Amino acid sequence: MRVGELSSLSGVPTPTIKYYMREGLLPPGERTSRNQAHYDDRHLRRLRLIRALLDVGGLSVAVARDVIAALDSPDTGTHKLLGAAQQTVIRTAAYCDDEAREDATAEVLDLVHRQGWKVSADSPAVAAAAEVVGALRQLGLHDFVDRLDDYAHAADAIAATDLDLVRRRPDVDGMAEAVVLGNILGDALLAGLRRLAQVHRSAELFSSGPE
Amino acid sequence: MRVGELSSLSGVPTPTIKYYMREGLLPPGERTSRNQAHYDDRHLRRLRLIRALLDVGGLSVAVARDVIAALDSPDTGTHKLLGAAQQTVIRTAAYCDDEAREDATAEVLDLVHRQGWKVSADSPAVAAAAEVVGALRQLGLHDFVDRLDDYAHAADAIAATDLDLVRRRPDVDGMAEAVVLGNILGDALLAGLRRLAQVHRSAELFSSGPE
Repeated sequence: MRVGELSSLSGVPTPTIKYYMREGLLPPGERTSRNQAHYDDRHLRRLRLIRALLDVGGLSVAVARDVIAALDSPDTGTHKLLGAAQQTVIRTAAYCDDEAREDATAEVLDLVHRQGWKVSADSPAVAAAAEVVGALRQLGLHDFVDRLDDYAHAADAIAATDLDLVRRRPDVDGMAEAVVLGNILGDALLAGLRRLAQVHRSAELFSSGPE
Repeated sequence: MRVGELSSLSGVPTPTIKYYMREGLLPPGERTSRNQAHYDDRHLRRLRLIRALLDVGGLSVAVARDVIAALDSPDTGTHKLLGAAQQTVIRTAAYCDDEAREDATAEVLDLVHRQGWKVSADSPAVAAAAEVVGALRQLGLHDFVDRLDDYAHAADAIAATDLDLVRRRPDVDGMAEAVVLGNILGDALLAGLRRLAQVHRSAELFSSGPE
């Protein structure tokens, strides 16, 4: 297809498509004449991933280029590739102070050990979880930290579904898209479903009559 | 205790404590003379909740006052009270367009029915979940929507732990605190634990050798 058709099928304006090519996010089309190039379904799928990284993921063009470079590197194994995609969606807000963070990191690594998870200590996911555990301790919410294993068990069930969805994707672009969007929208989805389930369970525990 | 001790125990400056009283967030102390008042542990617990609502929850003083008014109303049952606390932490971003939202709401209500959850159709939690389901559909992530029941099952396990923690709190201020902070920090905690579990499961599925 020509660039105009790529634009109408993807919903991305032609000047934006050309900008993505100049920035190295989208590979150039196959030249068919001096002024024309041919694009195919891979360009369409790649455009969808670019929009996901930029619009839904909120990544900068520079970070999106790094993610895409990892996808295009022939010697990146699937696990490393998914790790690169995952790192783009790990947000570590500074919730707690340095001392709380250090203690919390040890608590999270103990949890990882108890769960039998193979995760290295310097994984950004460890830091992200430790930041929240530290904040819970600082706010005196020790009862929540005491139930870390219950939450980890539920998180593991979620991750099993996540990875099953990733595994079924036909190619690496689709897998990366599932990791990025599945995490970002998935967090919001789980927040919504969790609150739905809370309403139900609160009614069961505390409501005296029908709603 | 006097206001100075309340300030040092809570970490909240005295002028801020007086501001909370003027705004109706904190009940006044018991007058012991013309210029002095006596405060007790209930003031300390209430201050902790106020800081949680404002700082971690990001609520405005006006919204925090509504939540606290619900807590203080003698005829509010626990279920309704928790609902009021919960509504402060339901964030509904506008992810999708009107048509997608309508279809997605029907999908979420079907899910609620399948899960046997007793949740009314106009609950803000339904709207929050529908917004994300609509966005997933709009982005073509139908495979994620197909697994809604798996995610709902995990969310229900999370809510069971949440409500158990709420139930064990000694008073309504503590319960409300557990709902507000448990949801806000809990979402971040689950996001971190989910990514940890993903790293582990990705290694199991895709890694050829040890990390």
